[in-house]
Amino acid sequence: MANYVYIATSLDGYIAASDGGLDWLMEIPAPGGEDYGYAEFMATIDALVMGRKTFEKVLTFGDWPYDKPVFVLSTTITEVPEHLAGKVEIVHGELKELTGTLNQRGYNNLYIDGGVTIQNFLQQDLIDEMIITKVPTLLGGGIPLFGTLDEPIKFKHVKTEIYDNGLVKSRYSRSS
Amino acid sequence: MANYVYIATSLDGYIAASDGGLDWLMEIPAPGGEDYGYAEFMATIDALVMGRKTFEKVLTFGDWPYDKPVFVLSTTITEVPEHLAGKVEIVHGELKELTGTLNQRGYNNLYIDGGVTIQNFLQQDLIDEMIITKVPTLLGGGIPLFGTLDEPIKFKHVKTEIYDNGLVKSRYSRSS
Repeated sequence: MANYVYIATSLDGYIAASDGGLDWLMEIPAPGGEDYGYAEFMATIDALVMGRKTFEKVLTFGDWPYDKPVFVLSTTITEVPEHLAGKVEIVHGELKELTGTLNQRGYNNLYIDGGVTIQNFLQQDLIDEMIITKVPTLLGGGIPLFGTLDEPIKFKHVKTEIYDNGLVKSRYSRSS
Repeated sequence: MANYVYIATSLDGYIAASDGGLDWLMEIPAPGGEDYGYAEFMATIDALVMGRKTFEKVLTFGDWPYDKPVFVLSTTITEVPEHLAGKVEIVHGELKELTGTLNQRGYNNLYIDGGVTIQNFLQQDLIDEMIITKVPTLLGGGIPLFGTLDEPIKFKHVKTEIYDNGLVKSRYSRSS
């Protein structure tokens, strides 16, 4: 039972440009269709929990990219687009309670996605593992991965992988 | 001839607590007196350029820790403490001009230190190499390493070293 962050950031910690743009990320060459362990990671999770903004961003991609259930945190959206019925569920409420409910429904390993959502989970110390891939670019502005915390949270470094194109993927586990 | 950044940051990109505090960094065990390549790096540089705040922080450490000339950027300080005469010089002015002057004086490889100073150098694309050591802690607030930029700056990943205590040191070189 664990909550995971799996995300790419710029060297200065942004996950997207100010307008949500991902061009800086998309333009990185990925020789041989390298997926940086994404498929392997996705195989270990039972469901995704994402914020409303990330959900709306994913909708712009066209094809729905997930084959696992997606829970979208929102108080403004109430209905799921018809073609995603059965794939997406709108949820809200207190995060600890929400993940407890999802765990009871059999969704034990959760992929927590989206800047605001990750920050909200971290503020409550509800993230167990973070897999962060650093892109060697300083964006100089945008949507930050991390936000403010009431107190520091210590993680343990698990492993780091280096890719030929300069991406550095580090895995961190919550120290206890 | 190059300008270097060599610094430790928290996972969320802070170089110090809001009050400049470095306890979170000092409390990391360094078995066997591990210096993370600091001495080796210092041997390659000719002089340091640091901001006034960093200089004042270093003064609180007691013993002066540098055996290379230190140039302190300040418009408010005009005099160097007596015991540092000949070791520290107060400088100001336009950064490109300043480094040009230092280069002419034979200081070719410069260690650029201090949050504001590093940010000012980066804003003018005057940093050639960054050696950044990531501490596996989320501080949740403090003095950030990076600031805003007019446009993104691309670096090349050179190498990454992992230390037993979970520190991850990555070296990046300016792409050209």
